[in-house]
Amino acid sequence: MKLFVSARAPSPRRVLMFIAEKQMTGIELVDVSIAAGEHRSPAFVAKSPLAKLPVLELPDGRMLGETRAICTFLEGIAPQPNLMGEGAEERAFIEMADRRMELYLLAGIANWIRHTHPGLAPLEQPQFADFGASQGEKAKEVMRWLDAELAARPFVAGDRFTIADITGFVAMEFARGLMKFRPGENGMPHLQAWRDRVNERGSARAGA
Amino acid sequence: MKLFVSARAPSPRRVLMFIAEKQMTGIELVDVSIAAGEHRSPAFVAKSPLAKLPVLELPDGRMLGETRAICTFLEGIAPQPNLMGEGAEERAFIEMADRRMELYLLAGIANWIRHTHPGLAPLEQPQFADFGASQGEKAKEVMRWLDAELAARPFVAGDRFTIADITGFVAMEFARGLMKFRPGENGMPHLQAWRDRVNERGSARAGA
Repeated sequence: MKLFVSARAPSPRRVLMFIAEKQMTGIELVDVSIAAGEHRSPAFVAKSPLAKLPVLELPDGRMLGETRAICTFLEGIAPQPNLMGEGAEERAFIEMADRRMELYLLAGIANWIRHTHPGLAPLEQPQFADFGASQGEKAKEVMRWLDAELAARPFVAGDRFTIADITGFVAMEFARGLMKFRPGENGMPHLQAWRDRVNERGSARAGA
Repeated sequence: MKLFVSARAPSPRRVLMFIAEKQMTGIELVDVSIAAGEHRSPAFVAKSPLAKLPVLELPDGRMLGETRAICTFLEGIAPQPNLMGEGAEERAFIEMADRRMELYLLAGIANWIRHTHPGLAPLEQPQFADFGASQGEKAKEVMRWLDAELAARPFVAGDRFTIADITGFVAMEFARGLMKFRPGENGMPHLQAWRDRVNERGSARAGA
């Protein structure tokens, strides 16, 4: 299998961290430079019609896109360690936690960065700076909720490390890298402590 | 079980349509008025910490939020007709299709409406009209891609009706209702024909 990724981009990083947690080997990585616009080339759009990364090319040539869908597939072929839940009920609760990390935390941070950071201007056209700043404030509200949650449990979805920790960690690293945002400096000690614990895992370097 | 919903809102409608396709009975519906701000009341935030709808209250009192996570749970207790895939591989491909409907089509349409429609001003503060208009254009790009896809297959994820059709249909109905947008009047006949086919299903009235 081939996984098309792009250096330091959050979505590919989520899948690479998932693969590292599973200690899967044998997946060939192919870098597609977003900075050089390679994701918009006809050759790549033939693989990923909406020009999104990452994409997994299966041995039979089919293309599977969408970060979390790729993880669902990989969990099927490498079930352990389980990261997405055993059975429908646990899968549902972990999906809830993962979606909260993705739709409110990561999307808010991504809009904040993409619409306000000069370095992202080539990728996000047009940028709407006021909208971006507003999204940053909404993301911080989600962080404050998450900080309170992590005061009561060690991981985002409960007692064990799951895909929701990967999504949340990659989101916070995106804010750390480009916006220099540290939750511990902003009154969120539990979120900082969780980030630091996840950062000690070997998988935290994958795609970084 | 109790499902907390809000009349005509897209996310509750997705779950109600899913339940109607399964012909599930015995789920009590509780209406929470978004227009009246009931979703921000302390009593409701205790059930749904980020004030999101819908939420499913399980018999043991646990609260399961997030549209697609609720569907994952319901698919577990009512497996037929299957709407989310049998086995990890099919689940992954349907999840890819569903995410494309949710993250690019529905989210684009929702941003278009929430940031430009005067009726949504009480819910979306502040509104960024230029951003909203830009998101409407991006949603139409996704519609044009989907129109071409639906020229070659009857349903969003392939040969059979799945959750991805529910998400896509609810997205298009949101644009139809509030923006008077009809794909057939905008050069997208396959998307219109698919919408009309889905609209003939009994489930299409659920939550409408």
